[in-house]
Amino acid sequence: MEKQVLGYKEYNSLYERLAAYGKSDYYPFHMPGHKRAELNFANPYQIDVTEIEGFDDLYHSEEILLHAQKRLANIYHSKKSYYLINGSTCGILSAIGASAKENDEVIIARNCHKSVYHAVKLFKLKTHYIYPQFMECGIQGKIIPQQLEELMQENGNIKLVVITSPTYDGIVSDIQNLAEIAHKYHANLIIDEAHGAHFSLSHYFPESSISQGADIVIHSLHKTLPSFTQTAAMHVSSERVDEKRLEEMLEIFQTSSPSYLLMAGIDRCIGIIERSGKQLFDKYQKKLKQFYLACENLKHLHVLTEKDYEWYEVPAVDYGKILIQTRHTGMDGKKLYNLLLDKYHLQMEMYSYEYVLAMTSIMDTQEGFDRLFWALLEIDRELDFMQNEKKDFWESDNDIRFFLNKVYAKREKVMEISDTEHYNKEETQLNCCVGKICAEYIFLYPPGIPMIVPGEKISEAFIEILKKCKKIGLNIQGLQDRECRKILTVA
Amino acid sequence: MEKQVLGYKEYNSLYERLAAYGKSDYYPFHMPGHKRAELNFANPYQIDVTEIEGFDDLYHSEEILLHAQKRLANIYHSKKSYYLINGSTCGILSAIGASAKENDEVIIARNCHKSVYHAVKLFKLKTHYIYPQFMECGIQGKIIPQQLEELMQENGNIKLVVITSPTYDGIVSDIQNLAEIAHKYHANLIIDEAHGAHFSLSHYFPESSISQGADIVIHSLHKTLPSFTQTAAMHVSSERVDEKRLEEMLEIFQTSSPSYLLMAGIDRCIGIIERSGKQLFDKYQKKLKQFYLACENLKHLHVLTEKDYEWYEVPAVDYGKILIQTRHTGMDGKKLYNLLLDKYHLQMEMYSYEYVLAMTSIMDTQEGFDRLFWALLEIDRELDFMQNEKKDFWESDNDIRFFLNKVYAKREKVMEISDTEHYNKEETQLNCCVGKICAEYIFLYPPGIPMIVPGEKISEAFIEILKKCKKIGLNIQGLQDRECRKILTVA
Repeated sequence: MEKQVLGYKEYNSLYERLAAYGKSDYYPFHMPGHKRAELNFANPYQIDVTEIEGFDDLYHSEEILLHAQKRLANIYHSKKSYYLINGSTCGILSAIGASAKENDEVIIARNCHKSVYHAVKLFKLKTHYIYPQFMECGIQGKIIPQQLEELMQENGNIKLVVITSPTYDGIVSDIQNLAEIAHKYHANLIIDEAHGAHFSLSHYFPESSISQGADIVIHSLHKTLPSFTQTAAMHVSSERVDEKRLEEMLEIFQTSSPSYLLMAGIDRCIGIIERSGKQLFDKYQKKLKQFYLACENLKHLHVLTEKDYEWYEVPAVDYGKILIQTRHTGMDGKKLYNLLLDKYHLQMEMYSYEYVLAMTSIMDTQEGFDRLFWALLEIDRELDFMQNEKKDFWESDNDIRFFLNKVYAKREKVMEISDTEHYNKEETQLNCCVGKICAEYIFLYPPGIPMIVPGEKISEAFIEILKKCKKIGLNIQGLQDRECRKILTVA
Repeated sequence: MEKQVLGYKEYNSLYERLAAYGKSDYYPFHMPGHKRAELNFANPYQIDVTEIEGFDDLYHSEEILLHAQKRLANIYHSKKSYYLINGSTCGILSAIGASAKENDEVIIARNCHKSVYHAVKLFKLKTHYIYPQFMECGIQGKIIPQQLEELMQENGNIKLVVITSPTYDGIVSDIQNLAEIAHKYHANLIIDEAHGAHFSLSHYFPESSISQGADIVIHSLHKTLPSFTQTAAMHVSSERVDEKRLEEMLEIFQTSSPSYLLMAGIDRCIGIIERSGKQLFDKYQKKLKQFYLACENLKHLHVLTEKDYEWYEVPAVDYGKILIQTRHTGMDGKKLYNLLLDKYHLQMEMYSYEYVLAMTSIMDTQEGFDRLFWALLEIDRELDFMQNEKKDFWESDNDIRFFLNKVYAKREKVMEISDTEHYNKEETQLNCCVGKICAEYIFLYPPGIPMIVPGEKISEAFIEILKKCKKIGLNIQGLQDRECRKILTVA
């Protein structure tokens, strides 16, 4: 039995392995949001065409694709919306490229997706960082409007502000306030709402930034809605956006042969929302509420709720993201993640040091929620007996908090990311790096938020943090030297 | 009956229209190369996952995706190959970004895909153009090695050469010779072989540039092989390529959530080639030969063969591309294209002024070839009676040739494409444009090769040509003013 279920890894062809996995009992608490549901869909070869008679042209849509994008705009109440077939990535690159030009000063949230950093480098922008509020367990929190106001005042010539809301963990910022501040100083506001495509589609979820004053909003449709991986949407929601330039950018960053399969997937997704959205969200909300209620019975594991965020005055939280905290259990996030995967065949979205993240959507079944709850309950009960084995690396909770806080501490910028291109680079032993300028991104994965970016000075404190991350087994990425013994520095 | 068949256009949802079209009798003489064949494929939702346990990471592949990409490299005998899920577009952007840096001088073939122009602008490169040989009917021909040698000599500091081979029409350049010249002057050679993914897979087709000395070669898998639209491959075939930089670029220009559906499609395609490639290409070759032979019976329409290219000393031609010439028939390409579409339900790939292009692949059926032949024969027979109606716009063949030759004539470059960004722009009436600097691309679509690019001077001759194109009903694109009454110019 065990062997049969695990059999999918025995296939060496990707297609065959995927097909076998699709038939397995592994349950997806991860994106894409269609949750591998057997939604009706034609043989993909049968419907995969190109820009032939009757099928319009994505980049100069006049008929069916114009209509399709209008339906998208209609659902989100945007001024104009675009199908994206190269993920939110191409939306971010395009939105930034259309909103700022070489040497423009921009403020970006430090917890932005790497595509924001790529855009900043490609378009040679001058960056100022705004750091998200630091929360429990290393969760990246909201952007504080007052801090934005201060940054805007200090740097009189900001053209653009880019913020991620909700964060990967589901924390929402006060976009209305942030937008007012950005606009007061004549800057545009782009919101990477990749994880919030389901916002505004139900009152149980936060309002979308589209209606809160953001100028451009980007949605990963596949993250939380029943749409194929790599599908996304971009929404223009103000008059401040140069739509022509934005469309030029989309033609640069998206293939000239867009997939009708992916576009049909977006169309299907919009169709589902139009026809059955209310009903599906009502059911989804009930399942979530029931799940959170049931989890109050857990004694060791703890599922985060608004109470945990109260102190931080978070404007809103996405309850579709289930965060299961492992603190005081003797387990770290990775251990719980692997336990849920190996023993219960529940595939989580990600683990962090002190928690595991389950992503849910309208396509999750009651069976799925039940499986997760009973697994957590069983693990929780077993923890009663495992407490003795607990060997915490940390002396106290404050110790952890202090450490996690320092991981994403502010670094000293010496030059712009794009300027590091003009220098030779060398790999430097960790112990010899202090004072040198970093020439690569270093981040923990997940969630992939940079601890340091090219052009920033490497401090002694940073090296200490890096060593500690390594010691406690966190997954450090971005370094050329995968073993994390050397850092690429400006020579 | 007619109504039922045409019914697909009555669907307003993209998915539903595609599904209806998939069931119609329209036959695809266009990309994608799977030709809507009912290849076995799972429900796409069932196999669409993300980077979960057992499914590797496209950008840091270590297991199944590494293996998959090695199989791809193995088929094409490349040093290293990459799956691309944002089309050849992202391969072109990445290859150029990895091979040249700001202010580097590059030579690009004038008939390059727009993504090459986009790359030149993004990376602020200094361009020199090499013009393809001008052939019959406005077909873009080979690049002449001697001309490359001269350009390399004149401009001592060329870092990169980018050439399209085969052209959209299937004309192949002498890559071996071109590569030797590029390398002699210490430049890298990138070949956009988007239309030649089937090369080297059968002796009936030309050799791939991969084995001819090119440094990076880009393939659109979907154009001529049974793979989904938007899938492509990039091959590194020399030691001159900075693979690390190339991989950094791929992470920039492709989504961070690559579609497993598209990747599974590439895997299926490679699997088909591995298992049945020889057999399928043998059959395909037979069908093509038979078709060309049968078409010798046409009296008015003319299917181009090597004899037509003899004078031009073309190194090789892709016979998978069927070019049907309408010269001396009183029909232009558009009319034949529409006739084949409306009356025979044969959807061609494109039309040009004097010909229609049918794309074929190993997935074409005998029935498909037969339908095309019998349709052409019927039209040809009817032309016997229609000759009287012929109202040619042109006085002689030379007149047409002369005109088409001038469409893509060399323009005077005043500034780099990227430098036009620094100027204000204005729309100028056609008659007032002479002497001004163009600030947009203007091209005929298809095939989409620029007649003029931003930064080039608008001459009187150019305006005359543009007016003539308009007069004879060619599809002029790129202009902000869709009516082609005004051109965007540097103010």
